[in-house]
Amino acid sequence: MSGSGGVHALVRRAHEERVLAILRERGGLSRAQIAARSGLSRTTLSEITSDLLARGAIVVVNTDARDRAGSGRPAELLALDPRSGQFLGVDLGHTRVRVAVADAAHEIIASGVEEYPPGSSWPRRLSAGVGLVDRIAREQGLSLAALQGLGVGVAGPDPAGGSRADVLAAFAERFPAPIIVDNNTRFAALAEAASSAEPVQDVLYVRLADGIGGGLVVGGRLVAGAGGAAGEFGHVKVDPVGGVCRCGKRGCLETVAAVRPALTAAGVDDLGELALRRGEPRVRAAMDRVADALGRVLADAALILNPELIVIGGPLPFAVPEIVTRAGAAIAAEMIPGEGHPVIRAARLGDDDGARGAIIACFLQSPLLADYPEPRSVPDPRTAGSQS
Amino acid sequence: MSGSGGVHALVRRAHEERVLAILRERGGLSRAQIAARSGLSRTTLSEITSDLLARGAIVVVNTDARDRAGSGRPAELLALDPRSGQFLGVDLGHTRVRVAVADAAHEIIASGVEEYPPGSSWPRRLSAGVGLVDRIAREQGLSLAALQGLGVGVAGPDPAGGSRADVLAAFAERFPAPIIVDNNTRFAALAEAASSAEPVQDVLYVRLADGIGGGLVVGGRLVAGAGGAAGEFGHVKVDPVGGVCRCGKRGCLETVAAVRPALTAAGVDDLGELALRRGEPRVRAAMDRVADALGRVLADAALILNPELIVIGGPLPFAVPEIVTRAGAAIAAEMIPGEGHPVIRAARLGDDDGARGAIIACFLQSPLLADYPEPRSVPDPRTAGSQS
Repeated sequence: MSGSGGVHALVRRAHEERVLAILRERGGLSRAQIAARSGLSRTTLSEITSDLLARGAIVVVNTDARDRAGSGRPAELLALDPRSGQFLGVDLGHTRVRVAVADAAHEIIASGVEEYPPGSSWPRRLSAGVGLVDRIAREQGLSLAALQGLGVGVAGPDPAGGSRADVLAAFAERFPAPIIVDNNTRFAALAEAASSAEPVQDVLYVRLADGIGGGLVVGGRLVAGAGGAAGEFGHVKVDPVGGVCRCGKRGCLETVAAVRPALTAAGVDDLGELALRRGEPRVRAAMDRVADALGRVLADAALILNPELIVIGGPLPFAVPEIVTRAGAAIAAEMIPGEGHPVIRAARLGDDDGARGAIIACFLQSPLLADYPEPRSVPDPRTAGSQS
Repeated sequence: MSGSGGVHALVRRAHEERVLAILRERGGLSRAQIAARSGLSRTTLSEITSDLLARGAIVVVNTDARDRAGSGRPAELLALDPRSGQFLGVDLGHTRVRVAVADAAHEIIASGVEEYPPGSSWPRRLSAGVGLVDRIAREQGLSLAALQGLGVGVAGPDPAGGSRADVLAAFAERFPAPIIVDNNTRFAALAEAASSAEPVQDVLYVRLADGIGGGLVVGGRLVAGAGGAAGEFGHVKVDPVGGVCRCGKRGCLETVAAVRPALTAAGVDDLGELALRRGEPRVRAAMDRVADALGRVLADAALILNPELIVIGGPLPFAVPEIVTRAGAAIAAEMIPGEGHPVIRAARLGDDDGARGAIIACFLQSPLLADYPEPRSVPDPRTAGSQS
């Protein structure tokens, strides 16, 4: 930053890196879209993209001709060279492993699932995961030689145990690429944030399952927290005289709004019965209590984090969608009058949300600038959120 | 990312930009510290710093000889060339403007304050602010020719009105540099996060004053939120049957723990009397209620955000430090058993926290990569946190 020549070169490099970072996070953008995201002028951007195209670092993937039929020359969409890298997402759940493979242009080019019995040992699950990747690669003729990154989502509380270190070791031995291991519920948050045409930057995601987990996306990035435990909506107190939670505290949201206490309060045996009988008074009253407790916790979080979007997912609201509607109304009622409120919706992705989110985490972790925060400790499986 | 030559050049540029970004955010680091933060090997880093030193982009600012007396050759501390840029922090409060100037090596090289009557018009305050900068520059012989950035903090609710757009226009006319305008309470959060020897990455900051404002630092960055309203701890409900808040809701934290309701509950006239009589039963009971409500709100936020540090500031806890102790105990009691809890402490900076934080916001906004989030709307002054 001394002479002006040095400054110019640094500025140019920074601009170029910025364009690549934008395309790494989201493939298939027009020059106008890149200009809007980068804050660069059209002239500067045009120089940079010409140079990157000439060097083969980026390519024209297609045009948005369909959207602009008849309005003149279609805009070219630019992306990183798809052949320049593959990204692998793995979601190791309680009963199955899911795998998805994406190219550098962000297209999912292969995927698969393999089930195992609940309670399977970690070595068994890990070998199923690695084996599934190998099988998909073989069947689809992928060499995985250009593997740029690997994200592995791990389900929360698990009787069979297993640590992130084991997961890391099992995949690192087989795949020579940077690996991110995180909670699969947090990866799902990232996938939901990215599931709109224009990715949402600030999202609260909560999942009501056997336990209650969640994830926060702030400024487009997954929040880890100091101890890797951000997004633990399940242990916010909703009832000072409530029941004892598995975490040891009393009256946590999880003692009210996880699947088991919700079924008990409704007087039904399983989620299928819950869905069928959800019009009955006792069941409705129980689900209202779930929605109100959830709404209170999410409202407080929304006042503090000011998100654009709140997503409520997991098997419980899937069985009883009214939970989302009622919690949404409770949240809206607590927002500051006259300032609007976040969009509140049910989760839109299916069982592959964890694998998709794991891939997005890899995209966000630039292969050049490794800035994905390392979890500073391994979360206690007793209290981490659960999925699948 | 096509040929390996291209990849090598890109990697090198990215590494160089990473080193510069680290020094821009925090001046005066040894090569070992830069290596730890960048994840680069000592060999790679040594090549990069040699090159940057040769080009004059960075300099050796001093050595840490004092800390290592007798332990051999002292480590060189590197920083951006201090002459290569100046950064200006301005805090426009209700009764005074504060200004601080820092060089590119992060040293505060000049500062000053000028008071104005409460309720002064915005044009008057803005001209006081611009005038103070000019006076400081003249008196200290600073040309401000190398001004790289300008952060302007603005107090919250204000009878005199005034918008961020006015502030931006007034300073932009006079200073040809990128300008960041934000709430001064949020800037204070950033300053507290940076006030330790090793800056804290994840911080909740709350300020109990005429209103209650706050700021969130996540992964070292200030959180804006979708509407620029992140950190609004004051409007979380703490009492379903509590009094009506100025925001229109009922039982907000602000109706209990802002200065005026706290004084009323304690039966005293002002903060001086509160401090003197804080051992009396009625005053203690009132302050316990403040601390318990505050503790509950911060505990829920801490469960969700998993911060490393919680800072409680503002004139109320300054007068009654027991609020911090008791709120801290309430927070600790709500954390998940066996997982530890954040450090909870009183604010440590004085009245210049807003101006210091404004400068840090400029450092974080790389002059090359403008990634400070633009607030997507101007917060309503009725509900934004207040300061000074």
